[in-house]
Amino acid sequence: MTDADAEVDPLKEEIMLATYRALASEGYGGLTVQAIADEFPKSKSLLYYHYDGKEDLLTGFLDYALDQLHREIELEATTPAAQLRALVDVLLPAELPAERRHVQTALFDLRGEAQHDDRFREQYAKVDRTVKGTVAGIIRRGIEDGTFDPDLDPELEAELLVSAVFGARMRRLTTYEEFSIEETRRALDVHLDRLFMADDAGNADETSNAEE
Amino acid sequence: MTDADAEVDPLKEEIMLATYRALASEGYGGLTVQAIADEFPKSKSLLYYHYDGKEDLLTGFLDYALDQLHREIELEATTPAAQLRALVDVLLPAELPAERRHVQTALFDLRGEAQHDDRFREQYAKVDRTVKGTVAGIIRRGIEDGTFDPDLDPELEAELLVSAVFGARMRRLTTYEEFSIEETRRALDVHLDRLFMADDAGNADETSNAEE
Repeated sequence: MTDADAEVDPLKEEIMLATYRALASEGYGGLTVQAIADEFPKSKSLLYYHYDGKEDLLTGFLDYALDQLHREIELEATTPAAQLRALVDVLLPAELPAERRHVQTALFDLRGEAQHDDRFREQYAKVDRTVKGTVAGIIRRGIEDGTFDPDLDPELEAELLVSAVFGARMRRLTTYEEFSIEETRRALDVHLDRLFMADDAGNADETSNAEE
Repeated sequence: MTDADAEVDPLKEEIMLATYRALASEGYGGLTVQAIADEFPKSKSLLYYHYDGKEDLLTGFLDYALDQLHREIELEATTPAAQLRALVDVLLPAELPAERRHVQTALFDLRGEAQHDDRFREQYAKVDRTVKGTVAGIIRRGIEDGTFDPDLDPELEAELLVSAVFGARMRRLTTYEEFSIEETRRALDVHLDRLFMADDAGNADETSNAEE
């Protein structure tokens, strides 16, 4: 997350976009460096120069996705409440078009691989630690600026929220014909409303719509 | 869940125990009917008579695990608050010895398969729907008996809690060297305390320890 404010390297951006497209078309199981190269408009040697094979491209992609998440919630949203709603929006969008679902599916397969592969496990430990740290920081700022209940423990609330959002994402992908994203988002909305100062409850709905 | 109060068929129990042991030793990837038969003390033909192959044994095992969960939280715990704490205890135990972790790992691999296999996806849709229905029922009873805040929406609270518990389980299995189960359980404890009637907060801790 440290370089999220820096300019994104355009070449890296193109490689990551190629990885995204290859994950969408091939899934995690069918992913090859060749499939990524096929989506990459420049010379394949550039790809090999920057990344040392498929595993390296995938861990790079997870870092890139983390940076993107950080951008969307910390740079584009302003108030702590809007930042938490943005986190839900990015990780649990109301609509999930085929390409985006295919990429989420591939990433969930990769999360499963983390059970059996040390490198991916370390990478997912970093993903969880980073997202949780970001959420805890937002809650801390919300307490400081008087929006959130000062009795909240930012670390514990972040722990709960990250599990709830990642758990809902998993349930959506593995039961999707029957999964109600509207209900999940409403449940998270009601939950986020609880973080506000007690006498601020009337403002909760307003804030929830502020960035729409 | 309908037959959870009925006697458990001892033969089925033995087959499910054999499946549990085979999942612990072989994982989902290495599971075969032969591996289950090797753990089954009776004639292999009995196993084939009751189950039509590996997929059938696995969906049977998920049904069995659901019944077990139902037993542990609805029959063994008494108050609604204790039942919700029991749910957390069963799905996110403080200790996770190797055998139990291996089975959770195999089940998480199976959850990943549900992305690509209609039958497992239907089965996981059933798992999620059943657990969520159980949790919503407990919260509803807690509201009726005056323990929980009557402003709660049982369906939305169940949705959130199930996602949080399943999400934490996933995070534990895929990042486990660094995952703090103590923090997760504390976060869920703090969250469950919130469900109580406002003027009942002093009783929350008491109830939380009632079944220990």
